Amino acid sequence: MSELGDKTRDSVRDPDPATVPAEQQAREADLVERVVRSFDACADPRLRQVMVALVRHLHAFLREVRLTEAEWAAAIEFLTQAGHITDDKRQEFILLSDVLGASMQTIAINNEAYGDATEATVVGPFFVEGSPEIPIGGDMSFGAGGEPCLVEGTVTDSAGTPLAGARIEVWEADGDGLYDVQYGDGRVAARAHLFTDEHGYYRFWGVTPTPYPIPHDGPVGRMLKAVGRSPYRASHLHFMVTYEGCRRLVTHIFVEGDELLDKDSVFGVKDSLVRRFVRQTAGTPAPDGRSLDGDWSKVRFDIMLAPENA
Amino acid sequence: MSELGDKTRDSVRDPDPATVPAEQQAREADLVERVVRSFDACADPRLRQVMVALVRHLHAFLREVRLTEAEWAAAIEFLTQAGHITDDKRQEFILLSDVLGASMQTIAINNEAYGDATEATVVGPFFVEGSPEIPIGGDMSFGAGGEPCLVEGTVTDSAGTPLAGARIEVWEADGDGLYDVQYGDGRVAARAHLFTDEHGYYRFWGVTPTPYPIPHDGPVGRMLKAVGRSPYRASHLHFMVTYEGCRRLVTHIFVEGDELLDKDSVFGVKDSLVRRFVRQTAGTPAPDGRSLDGDWSKVRFDIMLAPENA
Ligand SMILES: [Fe+2]
Ligand SMILES: [Fe+2]
Repeated sequence: MSELGDKTRDSVRDPDPATVPAEQQAREADLVERVVRSFDACADPRLRQVMVALVRHLHAFLREVRLTEAEWAAAIEFLTQAGHITDDKRQEFILLSDVLGASMQTIAINNEAYGDATEATVVGPFFVEGSPEIPIGGDMSFGAGGEPCLVEGTVTDSAGTPLAGARIEVWEADGDGLYDVQYGDGRVAARAHLFTDEHGYYRFWGVTPTPYPIPHDGPVGRMLKAVGRSPYRASHLHFMVTYEGCRRLVTHIFVEGDELLDKDSVFGVKDSLVRRFVRQTAGTPAPDGRSLDGDWSKVRFDIMLAPENA
Repeated sequence: MSELGDKTRDSVRDPDPATVPAEQQAREADLVERVVRSFDACADPRLRQVMVALVRHLHAFLREVRLTEAEWAAAIEFLTQAGHITDDKRQEFILLSDVLGASMQTIAINNEAYGDATEATVVGPFFVEGSPEIPIGGDMSFGAGGEPCLVEGTVTDSAGTPLAGARIEVWEADGDGLYDVQYGDGRVAARAHLFTDEHGYYRFWGVTPTPYPIPHDGPVGRMLKAVGRSPYRASHLHFMVTYEGCRRLVTHIFVEGDELLDKDSVFGVKDSLVRRFVRQTAGTPAPDGRSLDGDWSKVRFDIMLAPENA
């Protein structure tokens, strides 16, 4: 098997002539060219480029693995099931893109590293427009269960200048590993937005991130099971930071020491995004005077935005 | 633009170092390897091979075209719409596979040419199990409108020996270019099955094929429009022929002289499947004594089956 796996390494090329006769290969290659030519009349050059590349890679894949008709039918059925489970709350195609690393690759392509600017990662399927606004120091949990966590930091531009009034969207799963929208009862919890103060500083209360599985009761979950992969994501807290003139940053912070850091089901972990969540025992006073009955944690996340179009 | 098109010709390879810095390329390549390794625990070697190849080609495509985040979102929306229009009568994912030539390539891969055996083509989205049986010489139109057409021929094995009792499924669009299932009223028309006689001979009445568009009121139709492609298929009549010990043949016959032969929207045309539909003027007596008020046509299609597992 490792041989078969290695065979794909050089990727797009004609099938092995020892197993596929030259005449057959010519027939297959001719079909690819006919499909490519069908896009000749496309008036939008970028659309044509994308479609032609899609066709070439799709056909190269089919020819390389010699896809059987039963496998083709299984792929159609998979996509059909993914379509039918998808609604305004569940997005199976994003999950599929995520677990194939396609989301993370698209993020990587469009967010090239820029100096020490904070790195981006996947947006995931749980961002929702219209989160409530909280003041600096407010609580974004809105009753979501879990251990309290105090998050603070600054937002600066790539020269280190603090950015006042930067908009920070934060969202996360609760202590049971579920986002508000997954309850299906209309609740809004563990999501909010706030703005940095005149020193670029922000602070809010949330819950300490815990690992959770991506929704795995659909075709993507069944695929992960069939290939022996876990649906779990490393513990994380989502951020989206916007400031005029800067590149929009969509990212997470991850929890230092989490054993899932190197097995994240959507390949979202970057070393630079792992943060130390400092454990605080019950009774430790919070800097803002909040009284806490149980354990809590605190974490610092300083954010540096790249320039727009960097 | 033709330059951009040509750039994809050699396909999977790293992006141009002039536009993508080496460090960025290394980051992207490393992600591909991480995704590939996530399939290491897959117990089914074939499944692992297919998934790893899918990942490599998918990522190569994303990296080559430098897919933007807006394009990624458009792809997710396209798949979502395709999923939502798909039901037990409409199969948008098969249409998508068809118009990208993926269906025809899968047919080509799995039905390598065998001597003079009849070539295969796409099954299309309109085959339905449980068609009515007709006797030799019967009429499969069941009231479907269109010009009558008498179809006859023999079924033989690859040595030319006639095959008695071979099962022939036939289905086609009516004179208005619609299959029965597209009316949504439960009608069964222009589909039937029959069996060859002791000489391997078959004959049936149907309707002379006319061009029709694939369903184009959904995302696949909008994509074809955006790239300047027609949704029309060359006129054809579908056959599926089965006989124990022979490779199942799924094919069409096409109409000689049809101006759509070289522009078929699903790339299904093969020269060997084009047949002369001989025009018969009103009043020309049919060989079976049927009396016809208007024009009709007749066509001969001799079918040679390849051995099973050939
Ligand atoms: Fe998440
Ligand atoms: Fe058809």
